[in-house]
Amino acid sequence: MRLFRKLLPIAAVPFFSLLFSTIGRAQTAPLLSASEYPDGLNFENILAYSPLQHDIISHVLTLGYAAQAAGLVYFLATLSNIAPRYRLSSVLSAVVMSSAFLELFQLSQNWNDAFVFTDGVWQLGTEAFSNGFRYMNWSIDVPMLLLQLVVVLGLTRRRAVSYGTQFIIGGLLMIWTGYIGQFYEVTNLTQFWIWGAISTVFYIYVLFVIGQMINTSADALPNQPDNLPKAMRNVFWYILLTWTLYPIAYLIPVLLPTAWGAVIRQIIYTTADISSKVIYGAILSYIARKRSEDLAYEPAISTARR
Amino acid sequence: MRLFRKLLPIAAVPFFSLLFSTIGRAQTAPLLSASEYPDGLNFENILAYSPLQHDIISHVLTLGYAAQAAGLVYFLATLSNIAPRYRLSSVLSAVVMSSAFLELFQLSQNWNDAFVFTDGVWQLGTEAFSNGFRYMNWSIDVPMLLLQLVVVLGLTRRRAVSYGTQFIIGGLLMIWTGYIGQFYEVTNLTQFWIWGAISTVFYIYVLFVIGQMINTSADALPNQPDNLPKAMRNVFWYILLTWTLYPIAYLIPVLLPTAWGAVIRQIIYTTADISSKVIYGAILSYIARKRSEDLAYEPAISTARR
Repeated sequence: MRLFRKLLPIAAVPFFSLLFSTIGRAQTAPLLSASEYPDGLNFENILAYSPLQHDIISHVLTLGYAAQAAGLVYFLATLSNIAPRYRLSSVLSAVVMSSAFLELFQLSQNWNDAFVFTDGVWQLGTEAFSNGFRYMNWSIDVPMLLLQLVVVLGLTRRRAVSYGTQFIIGGLLMIWTGYIGQFYEVTNLTQFWIWGAISTVFYIYVLFVIGQMINTSADALPNQPDNLPKAMRNVFWYILLTWTLYPIAYLIPVLLPTAWGAVIRQIIYTTADISSKVIYGAILSYIARKRSEDLAYEPAISTARR
Repeated sequence: MRLFRKLLPIAAVPFFSLLFSTIGRAQTAPLLSASEYPDGLNFENILAYSPLQHDIISHVLTLGYAAQAAGLVYFLATLSNIAPRYRLSSVLSAVVMSSAFLELFQLSQNWNDAFVFTDGVWQLGTEAFSNGFRYMNWSIDVPMLLLQLVVVLGLTRRRAVSYGTQFIIGGLLMIWTGYIGQFYEVTNLTQFWIWGAISTVFYIYVLFVIGQMINTSADALPNQPDNLPKAMRNVFWYILLTWTLYPIAYLIPVLLPTAWGAVIRQIIYTTADISSKVIYGAILSYIARKRSEDLAYEPAISTARR
């Protein structure tokens, strides 16, 4: 670990200088002007990609769905380590993994089908690419990810129903307003900004409800052997950090409307998908297993490391 | 929650005004007149779509099959929470999920294969789209969904066989007559209406049998801790509401024969598929788990929230 810390700054210099020289070099101009595009086209479609750019996106998209499939196996295979009272958390992670796997697999196929390689560049053929698949995935995942919190916190039924309702309604409105906005990222920036802003309001609302719920419930978690109240509070910051990657990706067509922008966008989306679904699920299943130990649940105790 | 209730009406105004301005703008005319089409063509094939319209359908179709896959994982992973006496309800939900997943996946691929993107619009290439896959899915699902009611109500063998027979025969005749009718939605509206009407007669028959069965059996369900007789009666209204979405989708080629009509049709179908299979299954597995608690089945008790 110490060796790694010493090496990191040394490695970072050539890494970033190479990265920025690459990004600087290979800008590709859009093929048409904005008014010529039909309604609903994503900005990825109006660019040409070098094999380097095109293939990074191809690769990153496969990483995205493979990680969800890997997570699915993990959550199903470790289900029985968790006491029945908290086991639904891992079941919901498995639900998230299965739907995310399928949507991201479809998205990856869509990317591969949409572009053709001619004269040394990748350009649109007779299909088009769409990020909208992601929003359908989130329509399933966001309610499930938030309900996992309710399960792991072990709320009473009354509070579980109240928070669950707020999460489902707030979460779906956040996603579906963003979904409408992303259709206009090329053709109508007014609509793009308005819907993005409405979506952000719901995002802040959901974050507020999560923060309130964790604040009022975390102290009921056991302090031994791990400091679970603190771990639970850290989960709030983890959600805040990983979920905020999504609005950044949403804004890329305005911030960086180039082929490298498209590459960065898919890297951000994939990073967010892996951290907010797979790693988040692993964190919550860890907390659920620790709570199971506290209930003297034998399989949780016997899998714990001392 | 109170904050949310205050925000909702404010958010609704720009939401609906933007939504309707979008729908109003982009109508697309049919490509040929009705007499020129060959027998059996679905109305989706004779239209041209903007990327916005085409992609919404693509996305919604993936949501449809991903939700079934997510449901499959859920019902299998929570099977052991339900007492053996009622467990078949969740098994049947898993059966429904697996067949619906495959049919809807096929339908989604069919949509993606049928249209090509040229000159800014999506039009039919060298394949064609067909909603008929849905009817094959229902041929498996409708009998299973109705048999779940028999399982959860815990009917005697004699009554179970009697109701089961009526459900299977009535349900299949409802589906297969509708299946014939949908082939004529473009080319022969007389056939379309006649077969639709025959299908509706069977639909009303099935609904009547469901209502009768629930009415005469629901009071045998436990009242504590949840009011299950009332929950069961609500299931009847839930079936009535969600199943009625299907005839509305059937009528879209007549009610709204435009590209936005095709979009709305697939949204209605997907909403109906998710609510009448996945959410319905979750409701019935909840009732089955509550009945299991009443039988003092330990895993059902330990997963219950108080």
